[in-house]
Amino acid sequence: MASTVEGGDTALLPEFPRGPLDAYRARASFSWKELALFTEGEGMLRFKKTIFSALENDPLFARSPGADLSLEKYRELNFLRCKRIFEYDFLSVEDMFKSPLKVPALIQCLGMYDSSLAAKYLLHSLVFGSAVYSSGSERHLTYIQKIFRMEEFIIHSPDFEAAKFWVGNMGKTATHAVVFAKLCVPGDQCHGLHPFIVQIRDPKTLLPMPGVMVGDIGKKLGQNGLDNGFAMFHKVRVPRQSLLNRMGDVTPEGTYVSPFKDVRQRFGASLGSLSSGRVSIVSLAILNLKLAVAIALRFSATRRQFGPTEEEEIPVLEYPMQQWRLLPYLAAVYALDHFSKSLFLDLVELQRGLASGDRSARQAELGREIHALASASKPLASWTTQQGIQECREACGGHGYLAMNRLGVLRDDNDPNCTYEGDNNILLQQTSNYLLGLLAHQVHDGACFRSPLKSVDFLDAYPGILDQKFEVSSVADCLDSAVALAAYKWLVCYLLRETYQKLNQEKRSGSSDFEARNKCQVSHGRPLALAFVELTVVQRFHEHVHQPSVPPSLRAVLGRLSALYALWSLSRHAALLYRGGYFSGEQAGEVLESAVLALCSQLKDDAVALVDVIAPPDFVLDSPIGRADGELYKNLWGAVLQESKVLERASWWPEFSVNKPVIGSLKSKL
Amino acid sequence: MASTVEGGDTALLPEFPRGPLDAYRARASFSWKELALFTEGEGMLRFKKTIFSALENDPLFARSPGADLSLEKYRELNFLRCKRIFEYDFLSVEDMFKSPLKVPALIQCLGMYDSSLAAKYLLHSLVFGSAVYSSGSERHLTYIQKIFRMEEFIIHSPDFEAAKFWVGNMGKTATHAVVFAKLCVPGDQCHGLHPFIVQIRDPKTLLPMPGVMVGDIGKKLGQNGLDNGFAMFHKVRVPRQSLLNRMGDVTPEGTYVSPFKDVRQRFGASLGSLSSGRVSIVSLAILNLKLAVAIALRFSATRRQFGPTEEEEIPVLEYPMQQWRLLPYLAAVYALDHFSKSLFLDLVELQRGLASGDRSARQAELGREIHALASASKPLASWTTQQGIQECREACGGHGYLAMNRLGVLRDDNDPNCTYEGDNNILLQQTSNYLLGLLAHQVHDGACFRSPLKSVDFLDAYPGILDQKFEVSSVADCLDSAVALAAYKWLVCYLLRETYQKLNQEKRSGSSDFEARNKCQVSHGRPLALAFVELTVVQRFHEHVHQPSVPPSLRAVLGRLSALYALWSLSRHAALLYRGGYFSGEQAGEVLESAVLALCSQLKDDAVALVDVIAPPDFVLDSPIGRADGELYKNLWGAVLQESKVLERASWWPEFSVNKPVIGSLKSKL
Repeated sequence: MASTVEGGDTALLPEFPRGPLDAYRARASFSWKELALFTEGEGMLRFKKTIFSALENDPLFARSPGADLSLEKYRELNFLRCKRIFEYDFLSVEDMFKSPLKVPALIQCLGMYDSSLAAKYLLHSLVFGSAVYSSGSERHLTYIQKIFRMEEFIIHSPDFEAAKFWVGNMGKTATHAVVFAKLCVPGDQCHGLHPFIVQIRDPKTLLPMPGVMVGDIGKKLGQNGLDNGFAMFHKVRVPRQSLLNRMGDVTPEGTYVSPFKDVRQRFGASLGSLSSGRVSIVSLAILNLKLAVAIALRFSATRRQFGPTEEEEIPVLEYPMQQWRLLPYLAAVYALDHFSKSLFLDLVELQRGLASGDRSARQAELGREIHALASASKPLASWTTQQGIQECREACGGHGYLAMNRLGVLRDDNDPNCTYEGDNNILLQQTSNYLLGLLAHQVHDGACFRSPLKSVDFLDAYPGILDQKFEVSSVADCLDSAVALAAYKWLVCYLLRETYQKLNQEKRSGSSDFEARNKCQVSHGRPLALAFVELTVVQRFHEHVHQPSVPPSLRAVLGRLSALYALWSLSRHAALLYRGGYFSGEQAGEVLESAVLALCSQLKDDAVALVDVIAPPDFVLDSPIGRADGELYKNLWGAVLQESKVLERASWWPEFSVNKPVIGSLKSKL
Repeated sequence: MASTVEGGDTALLPEFPRGPLDAYRARASFSWKELALFTEGEGMLRFKKTIFSALENDPLFARSPGADLSLEKYRELNFLRCKRIFEYDFLSVEDMFKSPLKVPALIQCLGMYDSSLAAKYLLHSLVFGSAVYSSGSERHLTYIQKIFRMEEFIIHSPDFEAAKFWVGNMGKTATHAVVFAKLCVPGDQCHGLHPFIVQIRDPKTLLPMPGVMVGDIGKKLGQNGLDNGFAMFHKVRVPRQSLLNRMGDVTPEGTYVSPFKDVRQRFGASLGSLSSGRVSIVSLAILNLKLAVAIALRFSATRRQFGPTEEEEIPVLEYPMQQWRLLPYLAAVYALDHFSKSLFLDLVELQRGLASGDRSARQAELGREIHALASASKPLASWTTQQGIQECREACGGHGYLAMNRLGVLRDDNDPNCTYEGDNNILLQQTSNYLLGLLAHQVHDGACFRSPLKSVDFLDAYPGILDQKFEVSSVADCLDSAVALAAYKWLVCYLLRETYQKLNQEKRSGSSDFEARNKCQVSHGRPLALAFVELTVVQRFHEHVHQPSVPPSLRAVLGRLSALYALWSLSRHAALLYRGGYFSGEQAGEVLESAVLALCSQLKDDAVALVDVIAPPDFVLDSPIGRADGELYKNLWGAVLQESKVLERASWWPEFSVNKPVIGSLKSKL
C-alpha cells in the first residue's frame, strides 16, 4: 500500500500503469518509492533518470526487436553508442571526485542497457584512463584529455603474459594500449612489470603500426559489441617517455630509479589498481542479477498455473517452490548491492591515499585488506549472479528460453565475470592466504586481529568462539540476520583453524609449500575465503538495515531481506556447521531451513514492490515478460508478432514442397 | 599404456596423433580401446563410426569456422541436413526393434554434431512417428511411410494447453501436427485429451490451411536450427478418421468407445509415451556433458600454468583444484550414460507391452515405476550437465569464452532440457508422490516395497535401516561405491519418513492436500526424489562395474569412476546425513571429502584415456582446444586466424579516424 512519502521529489519516480501486478503492489508492506529514496538518495535517482532518459530518447539506442545483427554491425553500433556516451558527458572528472558512487552508477546504467556498451566505455575511460592517471606523471596528462575527447581510441592491456590475447577494445578500434612489460635495463637486473603506452594503430588510417600484429579474437559467448583483440610486438621501439613512470623510471642516462625500496613495496602499492578491476566487476555482476530477478519475479507474479480449485489458476509466485527459487536472489541483490557500494567507497579511500603519496603502514594494510576482500567479492558476486540467472531462466519456463526475454544475454554477458581479472577459484586463494597470514602473526607474534576496515576484527574471538553452539530452538527466534552473523563468525574461525592445521600437517609430512597449499585449497582454503566474504557482506547489510536512520516503515522489509540473505547463504554451509559441532541434532538444520522458507513466504507479497525499486525503465530492461505493466501475454504476443517474417512462409519453401521428387536413398554410399 | 586388445576390431578405433597429450595417455592404467569395446560393443562402435564418417565426408555438413549464420539460413541448412539424414537411412524400423539402443545412439551422434539437427530429426521421426504409431491404428499407417520418406514435413504438438506455443518444427516446415484436444461429443460428456492429426499447411505451397494461424516464435537461446512455432485453430474441421484411435474412438453414429474402463486406466496406458520424451532427454543431456568434459579435460592436460619451480610450468590438470572441478563430471558421464541406456531398455520393455496389448497389473506397475524414474532422471541428467558445462567453461578460462570452442553452444543447447517435458522442479513431485504412495500402502495395508524393475525393493529395510550409522573411519575403506550405496539407502529411507510425517503434520494442522504438498516439496519432496534417482544411478553403475564379465584390466578404473560419482553425489547431502544422525563428528565428513579428493587424484592420470573413449571425432567435437592431437596453441591460433576479417581494418574505420572533427558535446540536451 502506498503511503505518502515525506520530502523528496517523487515526480522523479514513475507511476506504474494499472494491470495484473496491481494485486501484489497493493499487498506490499511498504512504499517502494520510500525505499528507493532511502536506498539511493534523490541526487543519485536524478542522475540515473537523466542517463536512462537520454538513452530512451536517442534513436541511436533504439531497441531493434527481432534484429539479427551480424558481429561486425554490432561492433560498429556499439562503437557509435560509446562515442555518443562521451558526447553526453554524464560524469565530469570533478563529479567523480565529489560523488564517487556516480561512477559505478553510470556503469550500472549503461550495463543495464547493454553490457557490451558498459564494457567498452569502462575499459576505455576508467581502466585505461585510471592506469594512465595512477601510473603516469604530468607528461602523460595530455593522454587523459584525449581519452575523454576520444580523439584516439585507447585501450588498456590487462595481461601481457596471456599471449597478449583478450585485450578489450583492441580487436578493431584501439589506437594505443597500456602494455605491461618486464623492464630490463642493460647492465642491470630486470625490474619486473612496468606499464608503457604503446601506439598500436595509425590514428588517421587505423592500420597497424610497423612491427605490431593486431587482430580480432572473434566471436565470444557474449559481450560481442566489444571487440577483444590480440597483439604481438616485434621489437617495437617506443620513446623513453612512454614509460608510465609514477612507480619507477629510467633516467636519460639509463639508470633505473624508483621511489619504492623494493619490489614487494612497489607491488603492494599497485595492489590498488589490481583491486579496482575486481571491485568494478562486483558491480557489473549485480546489475545483471537485478535485471534477471526483476524479469523472473514480474513474470512469476503474472503467470498463472493450476491452483487449489478448478475455478481459478494462481500466479506461480504463490507456490513455496517458486518463492524458494527466486526470493533469496532478490535478497542477494539488496545485500550485494549495498556491499558493492561500500566496497567501492573503501577503494576510493585507498586510491586517494595513493594519489596523495601516502606511504604509511595503514595505507599498506588497507591495500592488503581490500585486495583480500576484492579477491573474494568478485567470485561471490559473479557466482551468485550466474546461479541466480540460471534459476531465473528456469523459473520463467519456456518463455525464459526465448531470446527476446533477455535472460540468455544476461547469462552470457555475466559469464566472463567469473573469469577475467582472475579465475574465481584461483583468486580465492588470495583471500585465504591473507587470513592465514593473520593467524600466523597471532600465533607467532601474539598480534591482534586488526584491519583498517575492521573486516577481520571479529577474529579476536578466536579460539574461544569455537566452543559456542547454535542454540536457537524456534523459527521465530531465527528471523534476524544477527543469528546468521553469529554462526558465520564461528564458521570462519573454525575454517581458519582447520585450514591452518591442515596446512601445517601437510608440510610436516613432507609437502612443499606449493603442494601443501594446493592440497588444502579445495577442502579448506576455498570455503574459508567464501565464508569470510559472505560474513562481511552479511555484516555490512545487517548494520545498514539496523541503523537508526532507517525509516520505521521500511525496517520490517529490510530486516527480512537481511535475514533471508544471511540464513540462505549460511544454509549452504550446514554440513560444516554440523561437522565442527556448532550444529547438532535434527532441530538445528530444521530450524534454519524452516526460517528460510518462512522468510520467503513473508517476502512474497513485497516482491513486486522490491523489484519496482531495483528495475530500470522498461526500455532499458528490454524484456517483454518483465514489463512494469505486468501484461504478460499481451506483451509477449506483441513482441512475437513484431519479429520479422513471423507468419511468412520460409524463403526456401520449394526445398520441401511435395512437388519435389521423393528423396533418394544414400544408403549404398555408406 | 596400450595393451593388446583381445578380439574385437581395433581398426574400428583410431590411433591418436603424437603430441602434448602423449604423457597422460602413456600414464593411463588401462587401454582406452579395451574400455570402448567393453562399454559399447563392436556393433555399436561400427554403427557410430558409419554415422560420423558420413557426416564428415558430406559437404552439406562441413563446419564453417567464423561463419555468422542468420537465423533463416541456419534453419534452412538444418532442414536440408535433416532431410539428408533420412536419405542416409542409418536406422531401419527393423533395426530399431532388433537393437533398440541404436536409437539413442543415433540421436547422440547427431546431437554431438549439432543439437538442432538431433532435435528436428527426433521430433519428426521419433516423437511424431511414435505418437502416430502408438496412438493410431491401421488406417494411420500411411502416415508412417510418409514420415520416413519426408513427403510431408510433420511435427508433434506436445501441449495444446500452453497456448499452442513452442511446437517443434512448426515454425516454418510442418505440414501436419498431432494435436491433443479435449474430445467432446454432443449429448455426452467430454472425454479428456485425445490426439488428432491435423493438417497445418498445404504441402504444395507451404501456406497455412484455412482457419489455421501458424508462425515462428522467434530466436531462442539455443537450438536455433529448429524452427519452433505456434498455432491457433479457428474452428478447423477435421475428418472423424483423423482421431488417432487406439485409446478411444468415436463411431460413425457419434458414440464414444474405448477399450479402457475409465479415464485413469487410459491415462495410465499413456504414461509410457509421456516417459519416452523424458528418457530421450536424459540421453540428449549426457551427450552435451560428454562433449564439454572432453573439451575441458584435453584443455587441462595441455594448458600449462605456473608450477613448483620457475623452470617449468605444469598442466593445470596437475592441480587438485582442477581435478576436483572436472573429474567428478567425467565420472558422472560414465555413470549417467550407463543408466541412460539401461533406462531406455526398460522403456522398450514397457512399449513392447503396450504394443502387444498387455493389460496386466505388472504392465501398469511398470508404467508407474518408469514414470517415477523418468520424472527424476530428466532433472538429474539436465542439471548435472548444466552445472558440468558451466564448470567446464570456467575451467577453460578465457578460451572457454570463445564461441569457437563450443562450450557456449553446449550450454545453450542443453538449457531447455531443464524445462521441456516438464520443469525439473515440478516434475520431481511425480517421483516423490510415487514413493509416498508406496509408503502409504505399506503403512495402511502392510504391503511390501516391490516394483518390476526392483528400484524400490531396498525400501524393505525401512524403518530398521534408520538406526544405522556411518562407520567408515579411514579414507582407504571409503573408496568403493558400496559405501555410498549404503548411505544412500539410509538417506532415502530417512527422507521418505520425514516427508511422510511432515505431510501428515501439515494436513493435521488444517492444510488442504494441495497446500500440504506444496509446503513439503522444497524441504522434503525434492531432496527425496533426487536422492532416490541418484541411488538408482549409483546402484546400476555399481552393479555394472562389479559384474564378473568386466575384464580385469578395466576393473580398477571403472571401480574408481563408480566410487567417485557415488561419493561426490552423496557429499552434496552431507548436511542431511548429519541432521538425521547417520553422520556424527568431524571424521565422517572429513573421510567423505578426503575420499573424493583421493579418487580425483587417482583418476587424474586416466583422465585423457577416459576422454578418448567418450569423445567423438574432432570433426564432430568441433572445438579447437579439444582436438585429439592436444596441440592447444597451434589449433587455437589456427582457428583464430581462420576467422573472417581477423586482421582487417574495421569496415567502418572512418567513424573514428582523427580526420573527423572532435566530438561535440550533447550535455546541453540532457
